[in-house]
Amino acid sequence: MRLDFSLNCPRPLEGERVRLAHGGGGRAMQGLLEKVFFPAFPSPATGLRHDASVLDFSGPRLAFTTDSYVVRPYFFPGGDIGSLAVHGTVNDLAMAGARPLYLSCGFILEEGLPLEDLHRIVDSMARAADQAGVAVVTGDTKVVDRGKGDGIYLNTAGVGLVEPGVCWHPGQVQPRDAVLVSGDLGRHGMAIMACREGLELETRLESDSAPLWGLVEALIREGLAVRCLRDLTRGGLTSALVEIAEAAGVRITLEEGAVPVSDEVRGACELLGLDPFAVANEGRLVAFVAPEDASRALRLMQEHPMGQGAARIGQVESGPASGVAVRTCLGTLRPLDMLSGEQLPRIC
Amino acid sequence: MRLDFSLNCPRPLEGERVRLAHGGGGRAMQGLLEKVFFPAFPSPATGLRHDASVLDFSGPRLAFTTDSYVVRPYFFPGGDIGSLAVHGTVNDLAMAGARPLYLSCGFILEEGLPLEDLHRIVDSMARAADQAGVAVVTGDTKVVDRGKGDGIYLNTAGVGLVEPGVCWHPGQVQPRDAVLVSGDLGRHGMAIMACREGLELETRLESDSAPLWGLVEALIREGLAVRCLRDLTRGGLTSALVEIAEAAGVRITLEEGAVPVSDEVRGACELLGLDPFAVANEGRLVAFVAPEDASRALRLMQEHPMGQGAARIGQVESGPASGVAVRTCLGTLRPLDMLSGEQLPRIC
Repeated sequence: MRLDFSLNCPRPLEGERVRLAHGGGGRAMQGLLEKVFFPAFPSPATGLRHDASVLDFSGPRLAFTTDSYVVRPYFFPGGDIGSLAVHGTVNDLAMAGARPLYLSCGFILEEGLPLEDLHRIVDSMARAADQAGVAVVTGDTKVVDRGKGDGIYLNTAGVGLVEPGVCWHPGQVQPRDAVLVSGDLGRHGMAIMACREGLELETRLESDSAPLWGLVEALIREGLAVRCLRDLTRGGLTSALVEIAEAAGVRITLEEGAVPVSDEVRGACELLGLDPFAVANEGRLVAFVAPEDASRALRLMQEHPMGQGAARIGQVESGPASGVAVRTCLGTLRPLDMLSGEQLPRIC
Repeated sequence: MRLDFSLNCPRPLEGERVRLAHGGGGRAMQGLLEKVFFPAFPSPATGLRHDASVLDFSGPRLAFTTDSYVVRPYFFPGGDIGSLAVHGTVNDLAMAGARPLYLSCGFILEEGLPLEDLHRIVDSMARAADQAGVAVVTGDTKVVDRGKGDGIYLNTAGVGLVEPGVCWHPGQVQPRDAVLVSGDLGRHGMAIMACREGLELETRLESDSAPLWGLVEALIREGLAVRCLRDLTRGGLTSALVEIAEAAGVRITLEEGAVPVSDEVRGACELLGLDPFAVANEGRLVAFVAPEDASRALRLMQEHPMGQGAARIGQVESGPASGVAVRTCLGTLRPLDMLSGEQLPRIC
């Protein structure tokens, strides 16, 4: 029911824009809250209009995370900064084995942002939150002067309830663990780049931005021996694996040919000279799973709507040195390291 | 012990600046995390380097809040954007009767920000968090291109444990309640404005930015009949009272002569044509207290280091219409309303 608020909430006038006064704590800000934010996020907690939301919580362990979003452009094929800010943060909670419950949302608006754009982004957040089963319960709006922002920056923080018995982190990763990914890589980053660079591709590349808790919950329900999950955002598969290998003190070997990358993404990466393994995703995870449960985990992922393109891409080996290597299609091993510079600025 | 990390953590080279690569998810970002952020916030949760922090939580109700900070300049007399981002968010939790436990922190850095400045801000956050008894447990860094930010924007979200039995909100406010403030008004806003406008004042005006949980906890421990608290940030006393009066459907009458405003603040406000009641504070609250407990509450506040300048400034009256009025020193009543425009942009 939260989606049809546009019926009883008048849209801002066409052509209206964010003014500094919208961030000033006076009537203009009240108007923005009442026209745009409260209708989109009608929880009882925001209804109280208090400094903080008071929320039920039943469990001994909570997960807490935050991300800011500065993606350029803020509308892109397959999503926008609003849906991205929901997916990114609920996925971070899911990676800790936590059911996403509550989101906060901080808006940093640039003077001059069309209110229509803000409305569309807030709508998109509300839909994404609904789909992910999470409530946006507290928020804040600041306005910065023209030329000191880029339309809109967003921050979401998330609180989740950690499922009993779950304790996933890089320190749990062990030799012989299987490395699985939940789908093909690079769609989010290349959708942004294609639209930013005006690439003419044969097929329209869409972001993979999506909430992953449902997939993670299925792994938990099945009782599979998961060691660690990580979503493949900035720095892509490469950064995630290198971080985990270093934190766990293990070697990870990838089979290059087993890593799923679509032809469109591969083509766009070649055009722009980018490495698809290092491109950001917003709806993909890597899972480290005990060898005896790897096949079941893979099948379960492939049967889930968020994991249809899942694949087993490598395994963990014991030392001596930690790191990541790729076995190429020719059978040679090449080391994989994080990029030292910046591949794709403002991708999320 | 968390404060002396500068001893074992090499400071960034003088003159080093934030680059886009510092936000890219690769080695440069790792370096920034390791040099600047992890040493400042050495909780076991950040030590796990996971997507979300897993935290103990024992209670049926949590408070959750967020604020972004875009104050200009980011260093100001009496504080900086880092300490402000801690105080602002722990105070929002305190206003809900919640003991602040955990903070998240999202940094949006502009390419070119001196790393020395970032280091100083992060140090200041760590000190402020220590003082407020709260742990920064999760964070995020994004870098935007030069000209798309203003040095640094910050977001903090906070999780707190709501004290048993506390249920404060505007709906609890009743006719005859006393209205108390915890100290003199307008210091934060006028310290920022004086420094921004280069005002030459006789005395140096310092921000009142401070954590208020200790003061709030004292009110709870004493078992006083508090109805509602609100910290007096953007829009100052005026916005807080108007919001509460409208939400509660009551009239609030202030005694103009009873509202504490220092001579420096009054003078600076006159120079700039500002109303001290509408100027932002970052370490002041308004408390609505049942009439029978008002004197005890006031005394208790005055005995606390954060409430030495506390004063009883007015009371709640019954309808018919809701709103706020000021009884002037001449005995006349004038209505008080939120400003419709922007008085002080980017004050917090």
